[in-house]
Amino acid sequence: MTISPLAQPFPAMPPVAGVRLAVARAGYKAWDRADLTLAELAPGTSVAGVTTRSKCPSPEVDWCRSALPQGRARVLVVNAGNSNAFTGKAGEAAVQAVVSAAVTAFDCTPHQVFVASTGVIGVPLSAAKARAGVADAASRLASDPADYIDAANAIGTTDTFAKGATASAIVDGKRIVINGIVKGSGMIAPDMATMLGFIFTDAAVAPDFLQMALTQATATSFNAITVDSDTSTSDTVLAFATSAAGNAEITSYACPGADAFAAALQDVCTQLALLVVRDGEGATKLITVDVEGAEDDRAAKVVALSIANSPLVKTAIAGGDANWGRVVMAVGKAGEAADRDRLDISFGATLVAQDGAVVPGYDEAPVAAHLAGDEVSIHVDLKLGDGRARVWTCDLTHGYISINADYRS
Amino acid sequence: MTISPLAQPFPAMPPVAGVRLAVARAGYKAWDRADLTLAELAPGTSVAGVTTRSKCPSPEVDWCRSALPQGRARVLVVNAGNSNAFTGKAGEAAVQAVVSAAVTAFDCTPHQVFVASTGVIGVPLSAAKARAGVADAASRLASDPADYIDAANAIGTTDTFAKGATASAIVDGKRIVINGIVKGSGMIAPDMATMLGFIFTDAAVAPDFLQMALTQATATSFNAITVDSDTSTSDTVLAFATSAAGNAEITSYACPGADAFAAALQDVCTQLALLVVRDGEGATKLITVDVEGAEDDRAAKVVALSIANSPLVKTAIAGGDANWGRVVMAVGKAGEAADRDRLDISFGATLVAQDGAVVPGYDEAPVAAHLAGDEVSIHVDLKLGDGRARVWTCDLTHGYISINADYRS
Repeated sequence: MTISPLAQPFPAMPPVAGVRLAVARAGYKAWDRADLTLAELAPGTSVAGVTTRSKCPSPEVDWCRSALPQGRARVLVVNAGNSNAFTGKAGEAAVQAVVSAAVTAFDCTPHQVFVASTGVIGVPLSAAKARAGVADAASRLASDPADYIDAANAIGTTDTFAKGATASAIVDGKRIVINGIVKGSGMIAPDMATMLGFIFTDAAVAPDFLQMALTQATATSFNAITVDSDTSTSDTVLAFATSAAGNAEITSYACPGADAFAAALQDVCTQLALLVVRDGEGATKLITVDVEGAEDDRAAKVVALSIANSPLVKTAIAGGDANWGRVVMAVGKAGEAADRDRLDISFGATLVAQDGAVVPGYDEAPVAAHLAGDEVSIHVDLKLGDGRARVWTCDLTHGYISINADYRS
Repeated sequence: MTISPLAQPFPAMPPVAGVRLAVARAGYKAWDRADLTLAELAPGTSVAGVTTRSKCPSPEVDWCRSALPQGRARVLVVNAGNSNAFTGKAGEAAVQAVVSAAVTAFDCTPHQVFVASTGVIGVPLSAAKARAGVADAASRLASDPADYIDAANAIGTTDTFAKGATASAIVDGKRIVINGIVKGSGMIAPDMATMLGFIFTDAAVAPDFLQMALTQATATSFNAITVDSDTSTSDTVLAFATSAAGNAEITSYACPGADAFAAALQDVCTQLALLVVRDGEGATKLITVDVEGAEDDRAAKVVALSIANSPLVKTAIAGGDANWGRVVMAVGKAGEAADRDRLDISFGATLVAQDGAVVPGYDEAPVAAHLAGDEVSIHVDLKLGDGRARVWTCDLTHGYISINADYRS
């Protein structure tokens, strides 16, 4: 597997008190690597989560949704190599096997066990392999613990590099740590385009506040990236807060350090989301799309995603082509209010079109230089209102076709 | 330019009484070909039209929208090589130049002149070239008339073959003819993904009925195809009915032959729409997506387009990969009601997944054989209601990337 040209090194990640990691070889596929990741979370750990908007979610997603309202977690199990999606009753039974193995090993309630799986779909996860893998990983927690990079590697499938992010903040006089790992969005057939993200913090945070902060952070991070507009049946982001840092529990934005915690969580989510785009299939350029002047923020995001998902825009960027006409097209097709004769478009720092026409004396040279780099920005001002949004995507290249078409499952 | 492997020969097209065609070399680009098409329509010709849903339409689209309510046409002018989109006041002035040249040549009112342009955007159409081209074409109507294939070639830009369709019907005891030509959807940078379609009939049809029939036909033809989900600023389909056939004018479905006329119009529109998909950039396979069992027809079309626009589905078909998991994914992301555990999916005549899981003893051989052909069908039954829809698309291949990225404008 060729490492993405946009890859980033895995950061130094401090430990998070209250979290223990282990990986095991469940053998879900015929491969020579760890493919089951287990996180043991201290009793009383808060949990929050966001899951795919797919109408055909995996049974793992169904399970997490049913467990989240209780707000507490003791165990996370992540399976790689088999998403267990679209597997009917057998798939549901496999999830229950994972849960009961964890309940046995950690003496917790079923709803304190969270499960995520990624990989081939349509094949039920082996309950026997999962049970043995959970038991094996549990036995390693003390004797053979895993680092975050081990876990980041073990949750990956077609990822070309391990993805992690960390941040810290002072909350109620205590330094708290937030670590995150993510996998995605390599989508080699017959695997699915699954993004899984797991965030661990030693801060004391009430489940409701953790959910609110995660939902807010997701809107401008995981939900602001797109590789090819396709949505997995398994996408899941879970956040765990162990409270080991000893701060007074954050229950609302009025609590000391709540803003700092939320900002650090946002930081980790944004870092992780950008790493997913950097591993987008065939990606050679990271594209930031900013839209302002829309009727409201929602409209701005619709327009920004229309640009970011346009195959014509993405292939133009791949070709280093300053094709602002395709940006106009993508604005027009978004369906939100736009006035052709007021539109401003910039590539990088260069205004290309103003008030709906190319700028007088337009010089393409600085634009071409910007597009030759591996980070490209597109800025659109609709000049209608105060709405703004930022989304990220990558270019669409022969690499994407090779990965997704030149492969026979 | 390599001709699409899915190309079809241009059909034999009978004349349509009341329609005269001519082409001219306006020289909008530095090319050695006719790039202006003129159709003279007999006095009293009815007109109807549908235009792009883009919020940033070209001034030609604005003009046609303003002229359509009058319901009468004497002249159609089509410019190729310059779409005149996103050109501000200069672009509007160019449209007015075309209109006034036609008014002068044919002694009609401005709103009886219809204009469409396709090609590079952001560069105002040359009013001088347009005026000279209209005059030249008008002078050729009698001495050097054009055939439908000449017109189909002259309206094309990056099309790899000329596209036309014809049908006839008995209306009120008279044989009427409907001819159509279309261009699209080659979208080589810096051109736009414009689809232009023009339909000519000698039937006598009132403008309101023509509009209703065209709108209905468009819903299941031009609006049921997708190459890459991108929408042009210039898309326009116009239908002209000269009344030369002598039938009693069709004003409603209660009139003799109204059903036959509408069916023939639907036939021509569907033929033309399929030709556009067959010339989709990089297309090697024509894909028919049928969805049934949705809550209603609208929901079925949303799901069908989600499948047809999915890059992962389209690349799987390109690779001959029976990847039904990607179809599940596309159903799930569509946002319409779906029950994962009831879904049936077929490729060609083979049921692949039933009730949300792969069929017992699934044999991929017949599916692989079907996918090896150049016409592929995907059938999804949601088993929730009576809604159904059919859409067409093409596969996503290296050819698409080469055309749209490996080119520097």
